[in-house]
Amino acid sequence: MTTFGRARSVASKFITRQPSILRMAVNGERSVLITNGTMSCQGNGVSKRGKVLSLETMNPHIRLMEYAVRGPIVQRATQIQKELEQGDTKAFPSVIKCNIGDAHAMGQKPMTFLRQVVALCTYPALMDDPKFPSDAKQRAQRILDGCKGGSLGSYSESTGLEIIRKDVVDYIKRRDGGLESNPKDIMLSAGASEAIRIVLRMLVSGEGKEKTGVMIPIPQYPLYSASLAEINARQINYYLDEDNAWGLDIAELQRSIDEARKHCTPRAIVIINPGNPTGQVLSRQNIEDVIKFAYKENLFILADEVYQDNVYAAGSKFYSFKKVLHDLGPDYAGQELASFMSTSKGYMGECGLRGGYCELVNIDPDVQAQLFKACTAKLCPTVSGQAVMDVVVNPPREGEESYESFQKEKKHVLDTLALKAKVVADGFNSLEGVKCNAVMGAMYSFPSISLPRKAIEKAKELGKQPDLFYAEHFLEEAGVCVVPGSGFGQREGTYHFRMTILPSVELIHDVMERFKTFHTRFMEKYGDSESVNAKM
Amino acid sequence: MTTFGRARSVASKFITRQPSILRMAVNGERSVLITNGTMSCQGNGVSKRGKVLSLETMNPHIRLMEYAVRGPIVQRATQIQKELEQGDTKAFPSVIKCNIGDAHAMGQKPMTFLRQVVALCTYPALMDDPKFPSDAKQRAQRILDGCKGGSLGSYSESTGLEIIRKDVVDYIKRRDGGLESNPKDIMLSAGASEAIRIVLRMLVSGEGKEKTGVMIPIPQYPLYSASLAEINARQINYYLDEDNAWGLDIAELQRSIDEARKHCTPRAIVIINPGNPTGQVLSRQNIEDVIKFAYKENLFILADEVYQDNVYAAGSKFYSFKKVLHDLGPDYAGQELASFMSTSKGYMGECGLRGGYCELVNIDPDVQAQLFKACTAKLCPTVSGQAVMDVVVNPPREGEESYESFQKEKKHVLDTLALKAKVVADGFNSLEGVKCNAVMGAMYSFPSISLPRKAIEKAKELGKQPDLFYAEHFLEEAGVCVVPGSGFGQREGTYHFRMTILPSVELIHDVMERFKTFHTRFMEKYGDSESVNAKM
Repeated sequence: MTTFGRARSVASKFITRQPSILRMAVNGERSVLITNGTMSCQGNGVSKRGKVLSLETMNPHIRLMEYAVRGPIVQRATQIQKELEQGDTKAFPSVIKCNIGDAHAMGQKPMTFLRQVVALCTYPALMDDPKFPSDAKQRAQRILDGCKGGSLGSYSESTGLEIIRKDVVDYIKRRDGGLESNPKDIMLSAGASEAIRIVLRMLVSGEGKEKTGVMIPIPQYPLYSASLAEINARQINYYLDEDNAWGLDIAELQRSIDEARKHCTPRAIVIINPGNPTGQVLSRQNIEDVIKFAYKENLFILADEVYQDNVYAAGSKFYSFKKVLHDLGPDYAGQELASFMSTSKGYMGECGLRGGYCELVNIDPDVQAQLFKACTAKLCPTVSGQAVMDVVVNPPREGEESYESFQKEKKHVLDTLALKAKVVADGFNSLEGVKCNAVMGAMYSFPSISLPRKAIEKAKELGKQPDLFYAEHFLEEAGVCVVPGSGFGQREGTYHFRMTILPSVELIHDVMERFKTFHTRFMEKYGDSESVNAKM
Repeated sequence: MTTFGRARSVASKFITRQPSILRMAVNGERSVLITNGTMSCQGNGVSKRGKVLSLETMNPHIRLMEYAVRGPIVQRATQIQKELEQGDTKAFPSVIKCNIGDAHAMGQKPMTFLRQVVALCTYPALMDDPKFPSDAKQRAQRILDGCKGGSLGSYSESTGLEIIRKDVVDYIKRRDGGLESNPKDIMLSAGASEAIRIVLRMLVSGEGKEKTGVMIPIPQYPLYSASLAEINARQINYYLDEDNAWGLDIAELQRSIDEARKHCTPRAIVIINPGNPTGQVLSRQNIEDVIKFAYKENLFILADEVYQDNVYAAGSKFYSFKKVLHDLGPDYAGQELASFMSTSKGYMGECGLRGGYCELVNIDPDVQAQLFKACTAKLCPTVSGQAVMDVVVNPPREGEESYESFQKEKKHVLDTLALKAKVVADGFNSLEGVKCNAVMGAMYSFPSISLPRKAIEKAKELGKQPDLFYAEHFLEEAGVCVVPGSGFGQREGTYHFRMTILPSVELIHDVMERFKTFHTRFMEKYGDSESVNAKM
């Protein structure tokens, strides 16, 4: 088997959840033989007794986890890029990775002011350096004053430095028109993912019909399906309405929960707004309906609002769940809500520095104390990541030295994203067999592809999801890495992929050119009169 | 009830695992009424329906978690410090926190070179600044070259940047006399805690007698008990031998596992070396015995080696489990081992920046692939924390510009810790009713206190662990915050506390003076002819 053959085979096992995952050979350099866990050969040393940990004896819930955004197709993309660098000739000069919301990896420059503040916090000897603006120094000093021993190297409170939680509260108040917020209800975290996983873990209990179920959108960001598998909670799918700009249809929510109640106890609903991978921005009315539904059905709301700065469509606006919940008045007071924010997205794109926060609204105080207690064992989120979050919630203000340059950099990033959102959706919609909702927000397009029946049959012959088959061809023939829709979930019989809008304007035009050529050729090769896409 | 009365009451509930934890009121500002989960009043809003999440309906395993190092006595210490700052008069001028291994919080200065490298990575415009030494620039550039888009702000591989994993491997080779190590077996993490928790989670499976049991030392670092409670694995206690410098007694390991096999399936053993909270450094012979035991009993070894740079006792030396395992030869080849390291301890003490790594030795490659897959959903450990780890494993070398200043700073920290280790143990041993093993390594003393019977009775009257009662008095009367031994576990009828050696030399003398005065007075108040400490 060629290396790529192996990679593809592994890919399909990851993504299709075949039982053969038990025999998956990810590390091709070592021979693997599993015979019921009693003996295994491996490269590091031959044991006379079997391994303690084998695929059969390990945590079965982790075995079931999947996380497509970093799946094998991405490993294959890296490999192709290496082959190109080693002089291989291909039909394209470079691989363009459109698989992950990683802005800096795609060449976006860090916000100058943000990095100045973090550098000053890291190496306070720079406080005397005239190259650094006064407002950056003032913010850095303020953060250091909040750290024990005046150092980023001391542990913070497990929920984060109090001074930064206060700044988060001020940010939320400004965002939500003055609505009250309390530093005691804020928990800083390493990206939003960490906080999301902690809150999900709090919700798990029961067995059988009593087992906690969590409603998640389909398509969804696979952090949710992966985490629910790992913590052994029931995943309850509700489908977003592709024909209605990926909005939430309350009838569908009702169908989903009614169905789920036969098997488990639904206790929470996840909403991603703006949407990942779908790029929709929910209307205020839609959010109201969801809150009323959650209240009626006794559900805890997890509002993944990490793309709150990423709204591009004319007429669209980000409304926080907290604000809409408040405006619904006393009838809905007490509705539990956790809202998540990150430094990884927005205009700053600081993924690697791992900043995030969660605001807890209307949580039982005893439960909240238990949640915070659960955070203590991981000690604290990275303090430099907390400092990044502080800049995001407390940027330079009008009149401050860095205000104009900060605003200019921010506007440039967001304007460029808005432009690319349009280029990508228009490009897809100009082609036969491709349909793409407007990229209203976030960083992703999620086009639907009407795959020819012959391509579907070929994929099935190879034991693959048809959209993986398609995405693999896109990568191999055109050098563009996207994530198949099956990694996010989609309606049976429909096929999609997620493609970020993060490459530079120049590169995104290149991506769309490559796509047009590839897609046309693919359709010619496999095309017949019958294309399959139930939603088209 | 006074505020302190409430804090103490909460403290005792946390630490004694009373069923009344179900009614614990941590946030005293809001009234709490729990009636079987159907209704709860709370300050944020009154709900017509009950909360989705209450103490009764939340994840029961998280409810059972405890993490004493950040428990209520620490919150009380913070409160007393605030009272002092607000002008309250007490018998002491300030609170000295000796509860947590947080060097920078206690005034230790960051390593200059380390912070230079991280600042350069954070704000590369500084590369042109002549104030920064060339070796720091070279390392920073090398790290940035390993980052996608040349930015710390892009995601790294989930197991960490390859270039840093390569440097970790070189470090391990140097440490272990040239023994082979492979970047593919290294996983970077946010401190050691994150990696420890991931490896523990991999091990959990089964129910009833099949349920995974993990052997942990008593006394232990409560990360282990907390994590095992959270993931619902069985905690198996083995007692360290206080009379033998807190060494591991194989007969005790055997007793412990034989007992445990009646209730669960022991699958792993945790060793902390140098010890936390006990400060012992294991002999080579002791490590060999433990490996042979683990091999015989089919146990996965978790070697918590985060204090590998912290060895003070004359004649003591750190031996890695990996090296000793290798030297035992082919009979033990294949023994599974995970070794953990952190940037939080050693001479650098960079707790807040969250760097760490885990080396996986002899793990089934399929299991290792699953472990790495499980990491993908948290995306990546903080990249600035990874950069910190890079400096730790790749410090300035002889002949480089920063070599001498780096060595000087490092030596100063370690020499001072060695001095304080002696001051503290000698101070304790000079007092009647106190006995302390040598602080051979790590950052902690763990003295044993012979508590008078009257004090024990008084504590029991108040529904408290006697050592908590003692530690609370130490805090209230002398302003020193330590952690009661019951937070780490100890033999029935013995009483200890953990006290760090991290305050400055001047402060540590102050601490010992305060202790002498307090302890003498305490013994006078409660003393009688009968003191209780089974081990004394």
